[in-house]
Amino acid sequence: MAESLKGFVKNLEEIEEMEMDGGARIRWLITHRDGAPTFSMRYITIEKGKETPAHAHDYEHEIFIIKGKGEVTLGNEKKELKEGKFIFIPGNLFHKIHANEDMAMICVVPIKAAKLLLGD
Amino acid sequence: MAESLKGFVKNLEEIEEMEMDGGARIRWLITHRDGAPTFSMRYITIEKGKETPAHAHDYEHEIFIIKGKGEVTLGNEKKELKEGKFIFIPGNLFHKIHANEDMAMICVVPIKAAKLLLGD
Repeated sequence: MAESLKGFVKNLEEIEEMEMDGGARIRWLITHRDGAPTFSMRYITIEKGKETPAHAHDYEHEIFIIKGKGEVTLGNEKKELKEGKFIFIPGNLFHKIHANEDMAMICVVPIKAAKLLLGD
Repeated sequence: MAESLKGFVKNLEEIEEMEMDGGARIRWLITHRDGAPTFSMRYITIEKGKETPAHAHDYEHEIFIIKGKGEVTLGNEKKELKEGKFIFIPGNLFHKIHANEDMAMICVVPIKAAKLLLGD
């Protein structure tokens, strides 16, 4: 992927949106397909009343809430979310995010997860 | 760091802000100090007229613009930035971001860069 060595700027709207279990929607902004070696940045939106998948997996998430309000379940605990909150979810911790208002967030995963989830 | 295995939710304002070369300001939201194994999420603000350091390094950036307008220099090219744009900067590419309005963004780096930059 020689062209990735130049880097790039793209707009959110250029990226196809996919639906996740729970009704959240995801855009894979930067992945190994772009030449990213270590981690993958995704943009996730959740409509009021919908949520992200309720699950655990062996890789971590780092999430920043850009807009909206909701709550995250981390193991047995629930915490409130709003713009400016951020979340560290280590590997193997059960989690889901439920939207009480339309939400948008950045969610970063390791490249090994991107390859797994995108089937590469 | 046993407690990090529970994960956490924090607010931007809880994190100390540090000044960077060029006048941008950075908050290290999630790092190896929290138990993050792979990558580190930072929140960077740039006041109108100021900029991030102008440099190259051997690790990559993945950046999402949350608010404001400006321009990024990638090697010899300049590209316009605004809310919803995102940037992949591969290792060893010269770069800087200049703000034409007050800007805020998420910028992710590998943990090896976090350790280097935080002196750990």
